[in-house]
Amino acid sequence: MLLLPNVWDVASALIVAEAGFPAIATSSAGIALSLGYTDGERISPGEMIACVARIVGAVDLPLSADIESGYGPTPDDAATTARELIHTGAIGMNLEDKNADQLLDLSVAVEKIKAVRSVATELHVPIVVNARTDVYMLPDGEVKDRYPEALRRLGAYRDAGADCVFVPGLKDAFTIGRLVKDIQCPVNILGVPGAPSVSELKKLGVARVSLGSGPMRSGLGLLRRIASDLRSKGTYALLDEAVPLKVLNELMRTRESQ
Amino acid sequence: MLLLPNVWDVASALIVAEAGFPAIATSSAGIALSLGYTDGERISPGEMIACVARIVGAVDLPLSADIESGYGPTPDDAATTARELIHTGAIGMNLEDKNADQLLDLSVAVEKIKAVRSVATELHVPIVVNARTDVYMLPDGEVKDRYPEALRRLGAYRDAGADCVFVPGLKDAFTIGRLVKDIQCPVNILGVPGAPSVSELKKLGVARVSLGSGPMRSGLGLLRRIASDLRSKGTYALLDEAVPLKVLNELMRTRESQ
Repeated sequence: MLLLPNVWDVASALIVAEAGFPAIATSSAGIALSLGYTDGERISPGEMIACVARIVGAVDLPLSADIESGYGPTPDDAATTARELIHTGAIGMNLEDKNADQLLDLSVAVEKIKAVRSVATELHVPIVVNARTDVYMLPDGEVKDRYPEALRRLGAYRDAGADCVFVPGLKDAFTIGRLVKDIQCPVNILGVPGAPSVSELKKLGVARVSLGSGPMRSGLGLLRRIASDLRSKGTYALLDEAVPLKVLNELMRTRESQ
Repeated sequence: MLLLPNVWDVASALIVAEAGFPAIATSSAGIALSLGYTDGERISPGEMIACVARIVGAVDLPLSADIESGYGPTPDDAATTARELIHTGAIGMNLEDKNADQLLDLSVAVEKIKAVRSVATELHVPIVVNARTDVYMLPDGEVKDRYPEALRRLGAYRDAGADCVFVPGLKDAFTIGRLVKDIQCPVNILGVPGAPSVSELKKLGVARVSLGSGPMRSGLGLLRRIASDLRSKGTYALLDEAVPLKVLNELMRTRESQ
């Protein structure tokens, strides 16, 4: 089972690598927020790719990058982004079927997957495409009624060449188990408070668990508490579990010397 | 008393601004590590200034940037960096007297302060220069014997035009109180576990407390624990206090629309 505590910059990637994980995945929301953009393709593809390239260059591990819906409305846009991404050295990508808070037409979403698959073939890089549906992330209709649409979409993405399917927002153990059986390809679940534990997901047949922007936003939650303590209590106790600067410099130096 | 929980990217700056702080300060180590460099002028001045510019553009608050020893050995290097920094809109800077783990000659450190002061005058921007000595940060000699050198240096920096003097590594209440009396200009102390609380520092006459790279490194400490929990316990409980994506998007959107 592949576990991915997603990263948003070089330092976070080095921490995950040091912790012994076998692969690195980026969070597009984490990177966008860090650079000053809301989630949802407000960042330029060039800035996103540049950040991914920095991380790829810093860590000796396979890296999967979240590239939202490929930065642009068309399959050609997704192909261009995939090409640039592959040139960074990344070997995987998340590609989602949402743009501007709307699900893409299924046919467009499918063509995007085919387009990135085709770029990967052309470049002889067997990139891992993790196709994401946002059916459970958008506010349309009742959550319990979304399963048929999710299955229809994910089946089409699998058939278009996705290696894995990703369903953020799906937390219900019964439905996760049902999807794993129905879809017959690797499934990625988002690990969030309230989702089944890793061992439960393993029993349900889930192949991959990622944390999305959770780790990056948790760091901001801690910053809020640090700032609040500084002002209201005048203390720095929450800095107690900081990674020492010496350790970080050492991690960074190891990779600089490679 | 000015309290500064230092930031390292746009998202962290927005969190500090939202928490009601009247000013923002960057951590050069935080920015460098995030972008993939060890602390200590391994990052290029261009990358450091670009990151500061991003943060200045995102937050409607006065910003003081940590520019290490000005990115280069000479007073001219410091002047060039100060010029670029002032062009970003920043209104303050930290300038330190160390390079490559060695204290600069006092005369060079003084000339650097005069050089940035002179650029500020030329550009008509009364930038706040927070002059830092690394006397207490370097491994030379006994900590208790460093006071005369720290005082000699900080006095010279004050006389060269520094508005505030900064002594990271100094945590001893008695010595802090003595320095405040002896130096007769505003003093900045680094808030770290083991340092006197804000209220104690206030009683001692300290003008400014900053946290350096502590908040950024604390986020990495939390990421370590999140990654460890994911792998050993298979749980996501530490994501519970993450700032919700919706809140972050809202904070970011507010500034995008300005």
